[in-house]
Amino acid sequence: MPDRLTAQIAFLKEIDKLKHVLRRSILMDGSRRENSAEHSWHVAAMVWLLAEHAAEQETLDVGRVVRMALVHDLVEIDAGDTFVYDAAARDAQTEAERAAAERIFGLLPADQAAEMRDLWEEYERRQTPEARFAYAVDRFLPLMHSYATRGTVWREHGITSRRVLEENRAIADGSPTLWEWVETMVREAVEEGWLAP
Amino acid sequence: MPDRLTAQIAFLKEIDKLKHVLRRSILMDGSRRENSAEHSWHVAAMVWLLAEHAAEQETLDVGRVVRMALVHDLVEIDAGDTFVYDAAARDAQTEAERAAAERIFGLLPADQAAEMRDLWEEYERRQTPEARFAYAVDRFLPLMHSYATRGTVWREHGITSRRVLEENRAIADGSPTLWEWVETMVREAVEEGWLAP
Repeated sequence: MPDRLTAQIAFLKEIDKLKHVLRRSILMDGSRRENSAEHSWHVAAMVWLLAEHAAEQETLDVGRVVRMALVHDLVEIDAGDTFVYDAAARDAQTEAERAAAERIFGLLPADQAAEMRDLWEEYERRQTPEARFAYAVDRFLPLMHSYATRGTVWREHGITSRRVLEENRAIADGSPTLWEWVETMVREAVEEGWLAP
Repeated sequence: MPDRLTAQIAFLKEIDKLKHVLRRSILMDGSRRENSAEHSWHVAAMVWLLAEHAAEQETLDVGRVVRMALVHDLVEIDAGDTFVYDAAARDAQTEAERAAAERIFGLLPADQAAEMRDLWEEYERRQTPEARFAYAVDRFLPLMHSYATRGTVWREHGITSRRVLEENRAIADGSPTLWEWVETMVREAVEEGWLAP
């Protein structure tokens, strides 16, 4: 068997573990916590379908955003997921994620390892339209989950509407249209009593 | 809010249900059954990374194969998953899947509903290189799961090596290289006693 394929299969076997990484988000029917593999699928479908709402949609490379979505959480296999409202944990995460990228992408043939790593770093840095839009959707989707589940996670952790707007403001850089939707959701969630004012 | 976005969000909320559709495949660590959303993510990553092994890789539209992977199982939200070795159930499935495609894709704005439906039908018909390769990977991945779990699903359902080779022969049309890998896996699984000869 060719060595490239052996390495690729080893990588594809390894990333099965992303299905075990649990996020804070609860599925929209409220039944259980979401894992990062199914979340990555949802983000990939979403960046594709909502690309027309990206801030810089005329020149957006949608295929690149989709690939970024597929790969953006792989480092969590080693580093775990961090809660968006836990700033201390998110800061401590950086080194662990870098080591995870090294190990996990390093399973691939060198050219593909570099391609994956570039995509992941581009996503993390948010200096390109593609990365800003992928990031916006990755932030937007958990808000849809929170809204659909009547704020279960917000209430559990005492999150206020002000914190939701503060911590997710980067959505506006990736998509002003999605940001307007966030403002509406937050207003409605406060009215419904699902989110503290 | 623009009507298009309202329809798109309704669709993206609806497809959260794919995370509840359980397949026969067991995760590679043997811990639980896989759902069709996390499987779709895995297939999407796999068609991208293994595209060089597609039968017609020189002209393959990899982005199209990735989008096909993201959408290929959505009809299961209504129609459920069918076991690859249950031919009767698979035949009965066709009508249910068609109705599911109508309802689910129909939630989207008309242009996107048509785009999704075209991709899904192209996948089902397997008349293009993209569809044949997507299908090959969709068939290959469960074999990786069975091999990694020492044939748990094969043994549970009394599947023989001959049936594995018969039912998955379409892999060879999408990727002769992956088919060689299948033959090796099957031979080794028989030797290990994980698969009946």
